[in-house]
Amino acid sequence: MATPPTHVSIDRLSHDLRELSEIGREADGGVYRMAFTDADMAGKSWLEDRMKSAGLEVSRDGASNVIGRLRGRDPQAPALLIGSHIDTVPCAGILDGTLGVLTGLECLRALHESGRQPERDIELVAFSDEEGRFGGMFGSQAFTGAINPDGIHLATDPSGIKLADAMKEQGLDPWLALQARRDPQSVAAYLELHIEQGPVLSQAGEQIGVVEAITGLFKWTVTLAGEPNHAGTTPMPMRRDAFMGVADFAHEIPRLLDENGSDRSRATIGRVDLTPGSANTVPGEARFTLDVRDTDETVLHELAEAARRALHAIARRRGLRFSYEVESWIPPVACDPSLSSMVEAAAAHQGLRYRRMESGAAHDAQIVASICPVGMIFVPSIEGKSHSPAEWTAWDDIEAGARVMLGTIERFAFSPSPTHPTSPASSTSPKTP
Amino acid sequence: MATPPTHVSIDRLSHDLRELSEIGREADGGVYRMAFTDADMAGKSWLEDRMKSAGLEVSRDGASNVIGRLRGRDPQAPALLIGSHIDTVPCAGILDGTLGVLTGLECLRALHESGRQPERDIELVAFSDEEGRFGGMFGSQAFTGAINPDGIHLATDPSGIKLADAMKEQGLDPWLALQARRDPQSVAAYLELHIEQGPVLSQAGEQIGVVEAITGLFKWTVTLAGEPNHAGTTPMPMRRDAFMGVADFAHEIPRLLDENGSDRSRATIGRVDLTPGSANTVPGEARFTLDVRDTDETVLHELAEAARRALHAIARRRGLRFSYEVESWIPPVACDPSLSSMVEAAAAHQGLRYRRMESGAAHDAQIVASICPVGMIFVPSIEGKSHSPAEWTAWDDIEAGARVMLGTIERFAFSPSPTHPTSPASSTSPKTP
Repeated sequence: MATPPTHVSIDRLSHDLRELSEIGREADGGVYRMAFTDADMAGKSWLEDRMKSAGLEVSRDGASNVIGRLRGRDPQAPALLIGSHIDTVPCAGILDGTLGVLTGLECLRALHESGRQPERDIELVAFSDEEGRFGGMFGSQAFTGAINPDGIHLATDPSGIKLADAMKEQGLDPWLALQARRDPQSVAAYLELHIEQGPVLSQAGEQIGVVEAITGLFKWTVTLAGEPNHAGTTPMPMRRDAFMGVADFAHEIPRLLDENGSDRSRATIGRVDLTPGSANTVPGEARFTLDVRDTDETVLHELAEAARRALHAIARRRGLRFSYEVESWIPPVACDPSLSSMVEAAAAHQGLRYRRMESGAAHDAQIVASICPVGMIFVPSIEGKSHSPAEWTAWDDIEAGARVMLGTIERFAFSPSPTHPTSPASSTSPKTP
Repeated sequence: MATPPTHVSIDRLSHDLRELSEIGREADGGVYRMAFTDADMAGKSWLEDRMKSAGLEVSRDGASNVIGRLRGRDPQAPALLIGSHIDTVPCAGILDGTLGVLTGLECLRALHESGRQPERDIELVAFSDEEGRFGGMFGSQAFTGAINPDGIHLATDPSGIKLADAMKEQGLDPWLALQARRDPQSVAAYLELHIEQGPVLSQAGEQIGVVEAITGLFKWTVTLAGEPNHAGTTPMPMRRDAFMGVADFAHEIPRLLDENGSDRSRATIGRVDLTPGSANTVPGEARFTLDVRDTDETVLHELAEAARRALHAIARRRGLRFSYEVESWIPPVACDPSLSSMVEAAAAHQGLRYRRMESGAAHDAQIVASICPVGMIFVPSIEGKSHSPAEWTAWDDIEAGARVMLGTIERFAFSPSPTHPTSPASSTSPKTP
């Protein structure tokens, strides 16, 4: 006889979202659950209580990652990990990573209630400080063994508070974060649901994004140096105007993306500082940020080379000096093809409108990919808004996301002989040129 | 019997320049004689002493403008005024307006020594606060009656010190500045020698600029508003990137100047502020300054209209909102054609390399033009440097400037029936569209 189908409850999920949204909410309507603040710790405690009520075995590791376990039939089989994070940026909305954690909670609660036991353990994890109050993704980095004592010692938040002090203030021992490292052999795969944080699904009227890759990026600070001159006394042909070099480069961006990029490439000039920066002086120096992203590291390398060439040419043409600093180079991460196929199959099975796409933003999945195959499910962000109290996803789409997560869990953890994902080594290591 | 020729002494001029340069010089090598500071007042006292030694009758008006008079044959004839200013910007060089005042001093000293009496009085004036520590050209504005009690009361320097308090601190009564207004009937013309502050003469290897006009200008603060979006999650075609609008406009500038401007037109984007201004966010708002100059007010109006049209079109094309504030609109001032001809004749007579040109920077002559015809003589600024301790003019060129000034004075004030310049009303009022 066939097992009765398991259903997620949007009402319970909605109730959970509402309760957790009150923890850390301030008068401006924004949520303030920055990592290791009182509100963040209260959120973790609330989550532990809800996990226990849902029938999960709850633990907290040395990085204060909250973990709830639903026992599977085979205690030796590596677990399926699902999750995201419940810490927030300042003045956040109520979804972001929280939606991924609470959707996972609802799935495991529904499974536990239905009495069905998975073949392998399923663990729900809420990673600490995904938003990077202390610089990196502390929780998932500790979980994957990517931290060390020096990093813990040096990490500070933007106001200068040390990670170690913030943890001690909460009664935590930062040293224990080094014990949070998880044996890769004990994890079969990681699945994360998150809001898209972009406008693609919303504008297309689609409900589910099957994430194939998380984009890598490079960030440069570029300096073009010319000559500061009097805006009134310096004829146009005698100028070495550093800002005009920036404008030239801005106009090269579409060509660079067309010639050297992909449909998934993005390039952004987000900040420009002109020196001396007075209305009546031709800018003598321009410093600007360049943020370039793609899901293919070869493409990133090509874009970097093309940007260098374009900037050199502009500098030569305008009599400027060109230099740049690489602020970061983060390789792209590929999602596991068989996990992506399970997500897709779950969406198709429910008759949902979905698309395969990339993630342009960073997620814990990017870090966890170093120890196991990862998959991601996106739900639409209305108008692409995120990191703001205006961030929202229609209830129908939230429910669709929860059903796709449950369907993916069923495909991965309930099949008597689950399709094993390809090994992490081949699927998640970035392509190199 | 012919009058023996009068000669300026570059040695005496050099000696004066060196002495005055020590007043207000600080350890960084810069001169700090900002208006109504102790150094500025010490400079004025020094100048008064030098004027007396040169045989001039010295007075100081209510705005603390220092005036030295060389008596002419006809006490009823309106005087020829020569001069500039000796106040400086912070960390200035030793020339700027000071060269004009000390060159005038050397000319009058040489004339006095030669025993020749001009037909009309010649007055040497050093105007207060030309550099605008307190916002405007206080000395020449008081001299021409362009100030009022409210303006005196409101004027403050960038650190918030009130003009009135700064004057009281020096034992001056700010109220008396209202008595500095000079009867226009008593002034025949104003002649000012100044360094070019631009690269034109220096690059052309010329020694003298015969200034035909002082450029007018408008300054706008332009705002382009789009949408701040995540640099990773927002595909290029879905962006409303405010900075790309600025880059578009920067590239329209050459076209605007070609189509609507003149060879004397300049347009500068000197400051750009992006909001939120973070590397990983598509700029939602861009504010930038636009400084546009020309010697013809009709051209300025045309450039303003063309800039508006271009910005409207860019905003429409990129889905941005465009607004701007007019920070200032200063009409151009024409130099008196017959005075310019005298300057030119003096330069040609000495066999100097000269050119007719405009002044791209503002000068006291611009203000004085409201009460009498004005003329200006430029000497080269090496590499166009000014408002810096690196500002310099070769001694040969300084001497050439002094000789042209003397020659112009002789042509204007010694001719028994001097060529009367055209009336101020027709020669100096800006052209209007």
